Amino acid sequence: MRITRLYVTHDLAAEGSVGLSPSQAHYLSHVLRLKRGDPVHLFNGRDGEWQGDVDALGRGWCSVEVRAQTRPQPALDGGDLWLVFAPVKRARIDFIAAKATELGAAALWPVMSEHTAVGRVNADRLHANAIEAAEQCGRLTVPEILEPESLRGALARWPDGRRLLYCDESGGGAPIAEVLEAARGEAAQGWAVLTGPEGGFARAELDALANLSISTPVSLGPRILRADTAAIAALACWQAVLGDWRQTRIKSAQPAS
Amino acid sequence: MRITRLYVTHDLAAEGSVGLSPSQAHYLSHVLRLKRGDPVHLFNGRDGEWQGDVDALGRGWCSVEVRAQTRPQPALDGGDLWLVFAPVKRARIDFIAAKATELGAAALWPVMSEHTAVGRVNADRLHANAIEAAEQCGRLTVPEILEPESLRGALARWPDGRRLLYCDESGGGAPIAEVLEAARGEAAQGWAVLTGPEGGFARAELDALANLSISTPVSLGPRILRADTAAIAALACWQAVLGDWRQTRIKSAQPAS
Repeated sequence: MRITRLYVTHDLAAEGSVGLSPSQAHYLSHVLRLKRGDPVHLFNGRDGEWQGDVDALGRGWCSVEVRAQTRPQPALDGGDLWLVFAPVKRARIDFIAAKATELGAAALWPVMSEHTAVGRVNADRLHANAIEAAEQCGRLTVPEILEPESLRGALARWPDGRRLLYCDESGGGAPIAEVLEAARGEAAQGWAVLTGPEGGFARAELDALANLSISTPVSLGPRILRADTAAIAALACWQAVLGDWRQTRIKSAQPAS
Repeated sequence: MRITRLYVTHDLAAEGSVGLSPSQAHYLSHVLRLKRGDPVHLFNGRDGEWQGDVDALGRGWCSVEVRAQTRPQPALDGGDLWLVFAPVKRARIDFIAAKATELGAAALWPVMSEHTAVGRVNADRLHANAIEAAEQCGRLTVPEILEPESLRGALARWPDGRRLLYCDESGGGAPIAEVLEAARGEAAQGWAVLTGPEGGFARAELDALANLSISTPVSLGPRILRADTAAIAALACWQAVLGDWRQTRIKSAQPAS
């Protein structure tokens, strides 16, 4: 059985004791029915992964005795890849947060474009979905959730040197594999994938994107993809061609069996 | 506004009239509030795409007058790529059917592996999800739903010449981009991507897969992907490197605006 992995905010070090949140305590005691002495893995995005065991468990609380580090903290956990996306409705945005985490995104940045139908983004909910996915997929980091803002605002303060691939539904992009293959060996200061809302980008937005010196329009083929499909597909292609999918697979946890 | 696309089973030809299903009629009249004369696009997977207009509309029925062909039927609509997958629970299997359709899969084949937790597959439901996605993404075909069977059985009658890429979570696969790039220019008689259940393939299954002369294990990187994420990611990589994402994008329908 796979050992349960939990994200905590506390520092982690040998011989320490860590208190879990009420919902984590509930999950361990009522869903998994763990008992005193049962093993768990903890990570906080800073100190690597640690094996610990349940020390004491009560109604709404649980303390874990931290034993030994099982993996050191990597500098980056999936490459310096951001997903910048026009938010979509509830189930699909949850889904984007979870999948982007599995696919190794370092940050998630909701941006409001002209055709974005969603007015407000629940950043806490994005964060919770990202944490859950990070726990399950074996990551040692949780993607940072960047403050939602307008697409225009995001482009105006776009970080120097961060390459931006935007999924252009209007037909202006080059095939994504060609763009990624051509970029192998290039020294970019990070990357970002930008996907639009269900209605696509507005003409003025495409113009603003094209004017950014560091941006490249890419095509995801002749079919019209849903916004969530486009985000997942573009991240997967990036990891496959430029990211850590190129490396030999190193198992980060035991498969369930 | 994007013109509504509907999949029908009738033959389509100029000057014909086509009756829609009760649920399609309901959708047009109650959800979209279309009226007599409003345009729709129809396709059946054989005769290309046709523009028609609503001829008459009643409670649970609608007839469409077929006017002119808007697109010819392509030989294949996304390449000869199958998704062979261990079924997962409800929302995720719906999701796999929809996303695989958007990503151009020609067929979906549910196979039961040793660790597959789902005992029965609702093929009608898979088909319905595939139709809905085909309507939305602009495809002129609906993926064929192959009869569910055991993974062993599927491998025993594996079609001659169809290359099988299986996502090997145990760490035995080469990076997917390398495998796909090496296969460019190769004349395969079709392709298939195989993804396992949440628990991964059993040892004996991996051995049987490795013994198939036409199979190649691939890796989707160091993180543990959910079964649905793996399916979508592998299909996207295939389309990007070997499929029709390499071609210049030809818009198949107007974007909503």
